[in-house]
Amino acid sequence: MNFITNPDIESYIYNLSVPRDPILLEMEEIGHETGFPIVDRIVGRLLYILSKIKDPKLIVELGSGFGYSGYWFAKALDKGKIVLTDLSPENLNLAKKFFTAGNLLEKAEFKVGEAVEIASMYKNIDILFIDIQKTKYKKAVETLKENLSIGGIIIADNTLWKGKVIEKNLDKQTKAIKEFNEYMFSLENFFSVILPVRDGVLVSYKIK
Amino acid sequence: MNFITNPDIESYIYNLSVPRDPILLEMEEIGHETGFPIVDRIVGRLLYILSKIKDPKLIVELGSGFGYSGYWFAKALDKGKIVLTDLSPENLNLAKKFFTAGNLLEKAEFKVGEAVEIASMYKNIDILFIDIQKTKYKKAVETLKENLSIGGIIIADNTLWKGKVIEKNLDKQTKAIKEFNEYMFSLENFFSVILPVRDGVLVSYKIK
Repeated sequence: MNFITNPDIESYIYNLSVPRDPILLEMEEIGHETGFPIVDRIVGRLLYILSKIKDPKLIVELGSGFGYSGYWFAKALDKGKIVLTDLSPENLNLAKKFFTAGNLLEKAEFKVGEAVEIASMYKNIDILFIDIQKTKYKKAVETLKENLSIGGIIIADNTLWKGKVIEKNLDKQTKAIKEFNEYMFSLENFFSVILPVRDGVLVSYKIK
Repeated sequence: MNFITNPDIESYIYNLSVPRDPILLEMEEIGHETGFPIVDRIVGRLLYILSKIKDPKLIVELGSGFGYSGYWFAKALDKGKIVLTDLSPENLNLAKKFFTAGNLLEKAEFKVGEAVEIASMYKNIDILFIDIQKTKYKKAVETLKENLSIGGIIIADNTLWKGKVIEKNLDKQTKAIKEFNEYMFSLENFFSVILPVRDGVLVSYKIK
């Protein structure tokens, strides 16, 4: 594990970014206490802004956990909807609880099962958020890139994978993430950037 | 000076992000050789993506230098236009040369003079990019925030100011940047995030 952002710098930004919504604070607390990986508030704010600018009709999340990233997306939605997916019904039930408390339930669908399979039933996805097993990222985009609308965005979390991408001896997951990153940058009809925010966020715009 | 992103991680992302446009490569080379501060390619790609998603009619840059950031914006424009400003006619002449070579001249206006003063003559700015003297950031937003359209974006460079924002004894510029950041996060009608990319990029969305 190598650090990505100077921890003091990260704290500085983090402390500027306190959410005003108590539900987000509660979700963050659960994430920190249980060790359940959430994108946390700096990435959450980025998702919110990207979604506000995009004004999407349809967001699909691959791997929603208990709904932290989805909650930020949903808050940004005007008339669109978001589909949350997870293998665990317990996670999605917890997400549903938070969405209910935040008055966001009508903007969301909750689907238990294999994320890519569920997502493949949707067309014209405007934002595809990827946060599943790292070995499945590349296949997910191969499978779903035609389901994304032109001008749509792929956002993938953990693309610097604890900073392991710069190591010499790569484990299976790091290797998969590096292959995914190279794949995204090689696609002619997508334009990508990796932002070194928290664990690395890839944002990719579908040009045509 | 404190580092913001792990330099090896930054290199990893940087090397994935090689521009295909030879003009951008030339501009980067000039930036690196002369030490003229450019936002460089990772931030450049971010500007491109934000601009693609936003599809702005009007971008105004405060402090364009020799046009590196402006070139990325201009490449992303469909029907909109970009206004470049700088105190130095030499810088803008060089920018004009690159825009001509890149076939982007018709999308751009070049205005020599005091950036905020020039920008205040424009209404309905969709993207306001700030890269002037650090002590002038806050005043720039105070002056121009009503010139920004609803749903418009402010993007400010150097908001982590060489990592100095975490130091105890602050020089004038660092103090000004910290005050600017706190100001942006305090505004009720803007939603902000600081991305620890290169020297810190603040992105702020005008909600109402």
